[in-house]
This record gives sequence, structure tokens and C-alpha cells, in this order.
Amino acid sequence: MFKHYIDEELSLKLVEPEDAEAIYQVMDESRSHLRSWLAWVDGTESIEHTKEFVQMVMNKFADGTGVSTCILYQGQVAGLVGIHAVDRKNSKTSIGYWLGERFIGKGIMTRATKAMVDYAIYEKGLNRVEIRAASENLKSRSIPERLGFIQEGNIRQAEWLYDQYVDHVVYGVTAGEWKTNGQNRGCPLEW
Amino acid sequence: MFKHYIDEELSLKLVEPEDAEAIYQVMDESRSHLRSWLAWVDGTESIEHTKEFVQMVMNKFADGTGVSTCILYQGQVAGLVGIHAVDRKNSKTSIGYWLGERFIGKGIMTRATKAMVDYAIYEKGLNRVEIRAASENLKSRSIPERLGFIQEGNIRQAEWLYDQYVDHVVYGVTAGEWKTNGQNRGCPLEW
Amino acid sequence: MFKHYIDEELSLKLVEPEDAEAIYQVMDESRSHLRSWLAWVDGTESIEHTKEFVQMVMNKFADGTGVSTCILYQGQVAGLVGIHAVDRKNSKTSIGYWLGERFIGKGIMTRATKAMVDYAIYEKGLNRVEIRAASENLKSRSIPERLGFIQEGNIRQAEWLYDQYVDHVVYGVTAGEWKTNGQNRGCPLEW
Amino acid sequence: MFKHYIDEELSLKLVEPEDAEAIYQVMDESRSHLRSWLAWVDGTESIEHTKEFVQMVMNKFADGTGVSTCILYQGQVAGLVGIHAVDRKNSKTSIGYWLGERFIGKGIMTRATKAMVDYAIYEKGLNRVEIRAASENLKSRSIPERLGFIQEGNIRQAEWLYDQYVDHVVYGVTAGEWKTNGQNRGCPLEW
Amino acid sequence: MFKHYIDEELSLKLVEPEDAEAIYQVMDESRSHLRSWLAWVDGTESIEHTKEFVQMVMNKFADGTGVSTCILYQGQVAGLVGIHAVDRKNSKTSIGYWLGERFIGKGIMTRATKAMVDYAIYEKGLNRVEIRAASENLKSRSIPERLGFIQEGNIRQAEWLYDQYVDHVVYGVTAGEWKTNGQNRGCPLEW
Amino acid sequence: MFKHYIDEELSLKLVEPEDAEAIYQVMDESRSHLRSWLAWVDGTESIEHTKEFVQMVMNKFADGTGVSTCILYQGQVAGLVGIHAVDRKNSKTSIGYWLGERFIGKGIMTRATKAMVDYAIYEKGLNRVEIRAASENLKSRSIPERLGFIQEGNIRQAEWLYDQYVDHVVYGVTAGEWKTNGQNRGCPLEW
Repeated sequence: MFKHYIDEELSLKLVEPEDAEAIYQVMDESRSHLRSWLAWVDGTESIEHTKEFVQMVMNKFADGTGVSTCILYQGQVAGLVGIHAVDRKNSKTSIGYWLGERFIGKGIMTRATKAMVDYAIYEKGLNRVEIRAASENLKSRSIPERLGFIQEGNIRQAEWLYDQYVDHVVYGVTAGEWKTNGQNRGCPLEW
Repeated sequence: MFKHYIDEELSLKLVEPEDAEAIYQVMDESRSHLRSWLAWVDGTESIEHTKEFVQMVMNKFADGTGVSTCILYQGQVAGLVGIHAVDRKNSKTSIGYWLGERFIGKGIMTRATKAMVDYAIYEKGLNRVEIRAASENLKSRSIPERLGFIQEGNIRQAEWLYDQYVDHVVYGVTAGEWKTNGQNRGCPLEW
Repeated sequence: MFKHYIDEELSLKLVEPEDAEAIYQVMDESRSHLRSWLAWVDGTESIEHTKEFVQMVMNKFADGTGVSTCILYQGQVAGLVGIHAVDRKNSKTSIGYWLGERFIGKGIMTRATKAMVDYAIYEKGLNRVEIRAASENLKSRSIPERLGFIQEGNIRQAEWLYDQYVDHVVYGVTAGEWKTNGQNRGCPLEW
Repeated sequence: MFKHYIDEELSLKLVEPEDAEAIYQVMDESRSHLRSWLAWVDGTESIEHTKEFVQMVMNKFADGTGVSTCILYQGQVAGLVGIHAVDRKNSKTSIGYWLGERFIGKGIMTRATKAMVDYAIYEKGLNRVEIRAASENLKSRSIPERLGFIQEGNIRQAEWLYDQYVDHVVYGVTAGEWKTNGQNRGCPLEW
Repeated sequence: MFKHYIDEELSLKLVEPEDAEAIYQVMDESRSHLRSWLAWVDGTESIEHTKEFVQMVMNKFADGTGVSTCILYQGQVAGLVGIHAVDRKNSKTSIGYWLGERFIGKGIMTRATKAMVDYAIYEKGLNRVEIRAASENLKSRSIPERLGFIQEGNIRQAEWLYDQYVDHVVYGVTAGEWKTNGQNRGCPLEW
Repeated sequence: MFKHYIDEELSLKLVEPEDAEAIYQVMDESRSHLRSWLAWVDGTESIEHTKEFVQMVMNKFADGTGVSTCILYQGQVAGLVGIHAVDRKNSKTSIGYWLGERFIGKGIMTRATKAMVDYAIYEKGLNRVEIRAASENLKSRSIPERLGFIQEGNIRQAEWLYDQYVDHVVYGVTAGEWKTNGQNRGCPLEW
């Protein structure tokens, strides 16, 4: 029921239990695509795992440490985007996202992520937003780059991905930078 | 961020921690009006109590037993409406609401409550929605009556209200009835 | 060990873990009889479920929200009666009960329920006692009727019973009424 | 409500929240008497502490580790007796008790303790019951001695009592011994 | 990593998760030896049970109620010794221990237990240390006897050991006694 | 009791409740020095806060997410070093530390941190160790630099320090690198 309208084809819907099936479906049809960069794909063997995930993100919403949303493209669940590890003491958070394979190339993720940064900075009042991506995941890295995030580091062997360690590139933007530059940025929105 | 659009002047916004101040303000300016029928008004002595309330309703959202929303009228918090005591086993819930004094007489509550019944029945898939009101609270009783709920009982001395017991009138609507009648009902919307 | 003496053939015994077997036996021998009106019968597949139930009612006793007792008829467990959902804020509770099939017709349930109402009003100091029964369960409805409860409502589709919704009739009595009428009422005690 | 009848002047009543006031009163009027041997007396400064104690013993009842009862003498709370630290694995428990000063000398405690040993052995099915008393507390030691317990040890400096360590004498009885001797014991019942 | 050095061949290592395998191995190779006196041996069917045990003792370390250590003999886990049931109110604790069969006869346990008593009295500041052993377990009883503990009692049928009850002998030492005698005691260290 | 010996003047002692006073003292005498870079100094107003901190790190030890140690220099508590946020899934952790002002300039922190890296990699088997320091805190940054960590990033406005945001420099070392280079590194040990 609860949505944030982005534009005529995109909105973000707060994850509720009713969404588990649609989330599972779009993940399930894109497994080989998603598992390249997401460590949890193989462990999500059935909709029961997605229901546990939904419960977990609803708990995080309740305790104030995260907000996860379904990306609705023309009314359909296309993927997820959310803020995680909200740290009130240091006024910062990080954003995570994934998109079903057939929704790629429409600029969905850039617009959805921009909306989440707006939410984190304007509504939640946070000072810093971080995005981490595996260093070889160029598609994922293109999102913060298009949105004007600064590349701040290359964290080596930061994550175990099935059979190897991968490095993480860290991008950050501060509230000051976002408010100055964020509005009139012309972002080419291919993903 | 997360809203349900009702019409050009009304929407429902899922309660988040950022809303505590606005909720407290509208309650605080309507104390004498609200305490006639709401047992918690005198106990809400400062915004800290409202913050505890917000935490409580976010916990209920997370565990699936309730959903509380701010009624936004022309962008301002005008009151609250929510579903409570969601009972999946018996597929039913009850709706509660209150409105700041200066927002009365605009048909706000009938439209907001209609939207919550739609949410309970169409999105949550529940079979029965109940509304209880103190039997002498005619304003509150008019909401389920306008929305076509059936009066099912008069529960005597059901609630202790500061210094006396008040009776409750119980109204109910089933999913079958709502789906048949709900769409084309012409509701005069004064409250 | 802990009992409330009603008369020479009846007493109420606070449920303890040692009672699980006797409770399960009387329920098990009356399954087809009890499942007409009790939603939990089919789910109670073994004594393990009854042990979980006993633990649950002991937790309610500890947190002050309920008291469940075995009805002992000539020293044997004949059924259960208890107060549930004790609501101190509004000073009310509701009573639930069931009886093994072979104990029906001896006036057991009326006497046992009268004792629980006495306990709720005189010992716990509550102001209102409620009894709900499925509207077609005439045997169950006869208990509050014999004890002078007032019929207060007919809650439609209040409960999902295996394969259909059933309506609930709500009966209530207040402490004032009970103290006035309760003592010298001549109740014909067939159930 | 829930009592165990011992004889025409004595019964044991399971501790419920309603008993806190009477328990506090009898303790409060006997402070100087009780503090000689009970470490918690000085810490029980108001009825709030007794309410916490009642909650604690109700929690123990619910989790199966203890059962505490008010000793009712001619209908009045005279003291407490209970089983503690119920150890199902090794099938044993220990008994603790105290009596208001003006109830001493009537044989109350011996009869009440005998009833608790019966409860532990016959109803709970435990194999061993232990009673510990400070070695100089001759009144308390006389209870297990009259009831035929065996003195098993002298545990030195077992308890810190306000300003000094006191030794404990340990007494024990097994289910076998109790069943053999327990019935026809002629106990002089002065305390 | 964290060890207490006793002498050139013995040290005590605080139990950490990494130790589960070595603990399980030494227990597993000594099953028939250990089960004579330890009730948990048969229940420890796989390393998973030992991991649960390690988690349990780490929780006790965190909440201040116990400290368990691996006895390292020439760098190998030879058994366990720890303080349990730490009772700050009465300033006392008890010590438990076991040794793999092939490590017997080297005086290991006497030295390890002496170190734990030192830790309890000098570092934790406790006033009393207790050791309990089954009365027929002469090897275990020899430890407190060599260390100058006083035999304080014989608790009959204190423990259920697979198929029978066994009696416990209780030994105790006070901080005063230990500080006077503990230093220059010449203990023959065969076990 | 439980220590890791580094050299004749340095050891690491697992934090226990008995250490709270010494930790508080060394922190308290170095407040103005420590608060330049540690956000918790002003909030640690009394030893009660240090006791809560000790309880928190003992809980982390128990749940496997961190290990905190007192740095003992010539037997005195000189500061703390520990591993935090142990992430088994990705096999990594981070190290944090602080030193009392009068212990600076003796090479204490480099040796203590080296020991913690050894512990994390050799005993805990972790693959990556991270150290973060405020970018202007050159003393703190010198530790990972001396120990051969690689500088991986500069996280802007990563922490709120009383009245301003500070940037963090991230350093990392992998198990492979540490095992190759760690042994024969000649570290000048001034801090």
C-alpha cells in the first residue's frame, strides 16, 4: 500500500509480507545473473527464505536500522533497493540494491537509488550515504558514479563470494554535496 | 516517504520516527477534544510518550499485527488511522482512528477509514474488519455507519475512561459485503 | 495440589505440568464431540501439544493475563475452565471452557463457570466478565444464560472453524450485577 | 483461590498477586524476628519489593523450578513455605520457609513443611528433598529433625548474613525413606 | 590465546570456540573412563554437543557466573577445570573438573585445581570454594583432600547417574584458611 | 588471570570485571589526550560506564563477535586493544586500540597490535584484518603503517567526533600477506 512515487513508470514500495512471492519470482528468474555478485542467491532456495528475509527487513524497519523497498516498474516488482546499517551516532548509512535481469537497461536503478539517497538525506536527515560494490561489478559501480558519489577506497578481499574473495570499491556522498549538486544533475539512466 | 494516495487532498503515510513531533503537536492542540473518548490522552504528557507510541506501532508493523498511518490533509498530519490486533488465524482485524479538532467536518475520517478497509481486505486479504466506538461517541460511530458496517453488539462497560466505564458499540463488515457494496457507495463525508 | 472446592463432587485445580496426561486423555476420547466448536482440537495431535498448552497457560498465570483450571468431577479431570485475556486497565476478562463428552448433563459446567466468575469478581476484583460462544452452539450459550449474563451482541464471522466462519454471541456480566443477583440465583444445572 | 487443605486450621495457598499485601504485612510486623536468619528482610523496604518477589515466584512456578505458598492459619497469612531449585535431572528440590513472629509455637511450620514434602514426593514425583538452615537457628533446624530428615552436613560460611558468614546445616530425606516412615510419624508440633 | 601459566608443563587456557575439537577428542577417547562419574558423557554424542557446551560456558563467563578452562599439558588439552555457580551475594563458588584417561597419574589435576582456587580467592575475591565429588569416586575426592579442604557433609542421593543415585561428599575451604595454609602446602601430586 | 605473553614487559589480558577500575583510571588520567580521537571519552563519566563497557565486551566475547584485552605494561594496565565486528561469513575483523598518555613512546601499541593480528589470523583463522583511523590522527595511523598494512581508502566524514565529522583512513592486511611478510619485519617501535 505504502509507496513513494518517482515518475510515471517507477515507484518504491515499502516491503511488506505480501511482497515475498513477487520478490522471490524476480530473483528466481535471474539467479545466474544475480549470483555473480550477490552472496545470498544460492542460499535462497525457496520462497520460505524470502519470507525470512522480509521478516528480517521489517524488523530492521521497526528498530530504525534499515528501510527496504521493492522497486515497482510499471506496477511490477523489478528489484530491491534499501538503506542498511543506519548509524545515527555518526549520521550515516549505506545503500544496497539488485535488479531482475529483464529490467536492466532502462535506467531503473539509477532513478531508484537517487530516490533512496533523497530519502536518507532529506527525510532521515543523515549526513553521509555510502555505496559499496565489488570492484569488477562495473554495472553496480556505475550507479554511484552517475549520481556523483566520490570513490573513496578499494577494500581488498572484503567479501567471500561462493569460492573467492572479492574487493569492494567504496563510494560516498555527504549531505552537503548532495544538496549542492543533487538537483540538477543530468544522469544518463541506462541501468 | 511511504504514502497511500487517496485523493488530491488526502493521503495515508506509514508512521515513521520522523512523524512523532507532528503527531504529538496535533494531539496536544486537541487534548480537551480527544480526551472525551480516548483513554491514552492524559497519559501522553510529552513527545517522549509519542515516541514510545511510534516505536510500539513500528514493532506491530514488523510482527504483522498492526499497521498505523498518519492521515495527511493537504500535507499536514491531521490524525491517525490504523488496523490493530490483526488475527490471521481468524482472518480479521479492527480499525482505530482519531482526528485533530480543527480537521473535523471535512469528511477526512470517512475517506481515510474507507482506504484502510480497502487495504485490510484487498491487500492483506482479511475476511472481517471491526470498528468499536464508545456508544455515546456519535461522531466516531458515524464512520462505520456511513461505510455500511453492520452494528453487531453493545458491549457494556467495555472500557475504563478516566473516571467511569463506557459501553462499546461493535460494528463489522465482511470481505464479501465490502466487495459487493464498497465500490459504489455514495458516502456523505462530513467528518 | 492447589484446588478450589466447589461442592462434594466438584473442584477446580490449577493446571500444573502433571495434569497434561489427564487433560489429553479426556480431550482425546471426545474429539468428534469437541471439534464441532473448538478450533484447536485437530491441531492437538499428541500429548506433546497438550504439554505446550500447559506451558502456555502457566506462562499466562505468571504474567497475570489468565488462569486455567482443570475441572475435577469426583476426582477425575472432566474438562477445563479458565479466565483469559485479563485486562487490568479496563478491569475485565473473558471465560472459556470445554467438557469431555461423558461428563455432559450433570450440571458440571454451570457450577464450574459460576466459580470462575466468583473468582474473577471477588478475588481478582475485575469489573466485567465476558463469555463468547458460537451462535449455533446452544449448549455453550446456555451457561452464561443460566448464570444471568446479558446477551450483548452477535459478532458475525468472528472465527474460522476448520472450513467455515462462525458467528460469536457475546454475553457479559458486570461486578455490580453479579454481586446483586449472583448469590441466590437458582440455576437448573443440566450441563 | 487455589488451596491445599491441611487440617481444620491450616492450608497452603499458591501465591498470587493479590497476596502481596498480606505477605508484606506479616513480614513487616516481624522484621526484627526474621532478620536474624533471613538475608532478604532488610532489602524488603516496601510492598513494591514484595510484589517483585511475588512476580519472581510466579515466574518460577511457570518454568517449573519452584512452587511458593502462603501458609494460611485460620484464614490469615502466617508465613510462606515453598519448594525451590527444582532439579528434574537429579529429581531433587529444597524447601524454604518463614513464619510471622506471632504465629510461632502452634506447630504450624512442621505441618506446613510436611505438606510440602508430600507434594514434592507424591505429586511432583521427586526423589530427594533437602532443607538447609543456619547452624545456630535451632527453631528452623527442628523442622527437618521432627520430620525425620537425616542431617547430612555442615557447610561452613555458606551464607553472608548482613555482617557475617553463617554455616548451614544440610538435612535430606529420600522418597524411599519418606514413603516408609512419613505416614505414621507422631510429630510434636510446637513451631 | 589467553592462558594462565602454572609451571613448565601445565597451563590453563580460557575455553574459546577453537577449543571444541580438542575437548571433544580427549573426552571421546576416555568415554568409558569418564562416564563412571560424569552424567553428561553419554549425552555428548558428537562435536556439536561440545560446541553447545563451549557456547554455554562462554555465556557463563560473560554473565559472571562461571569460568571454564582447558588444562593444557605440554601444550595439549588434557581435561577441563572451572569455577561454577559463582554466588557474589554469598561470595562463594564451586569447582568442577575432569581429565582424559591417559593424563592421569601425573599430578595434573591437583595443580590445576590449586590454580583455580587461587584464581577464585585472590583474583575474584571470593570467600568460599566448594568441591563436590561422588562419595565412591576416590580419585576425585583426593583432590580437595590434598589441597586441605575440609570434608563438610555427605549429601545422599544427590545425583542421578544414568541408572542410579549417587551420594555426594562436600568439601569446602574458606579464603581465610587458604591464605593461611595454601602457600607452603606440600601436595603429593599423583593425579 | 588469562594472559597472552608478548615479551618481558608486555602482555595482553582478556578483559574481566575485575579490570574495570584499572581501565577507568588510565582512561580518566588521559582524558584530554584521548578525547581528541575517541568519541566515547566524554560519555564515560564514571566507573559505572566502564563497567557497562566491560559487560558489553564480555558479551561480544561470548557471542564470538569480538575479543578485547587490557595491554599490561610491566604489570600495569596501559590501554586496550581488541578485535571487533568479527565477520565469519567474510572471514574478516577490525582492530581498535587506545593507550594512556604516559605509556606513549615505548613501542607498546605496535607490539600489542601485532599480537592481535597474529591472534586474528593464526588462532581465529580470519582472512582479513582492517584498521581504521581518523585521517589526521598520525600516531594511530603509524601502527598499521609500521605493521605493513596497505592503505585502501579515505572514507570522508565517517565519524561524528563531538562537534565535527572526521574522515577515516582504512588500512587492511590479508592473511596471505601477513604470513608472508609478518615474521621478519623490523618495526621501529616508538609508540
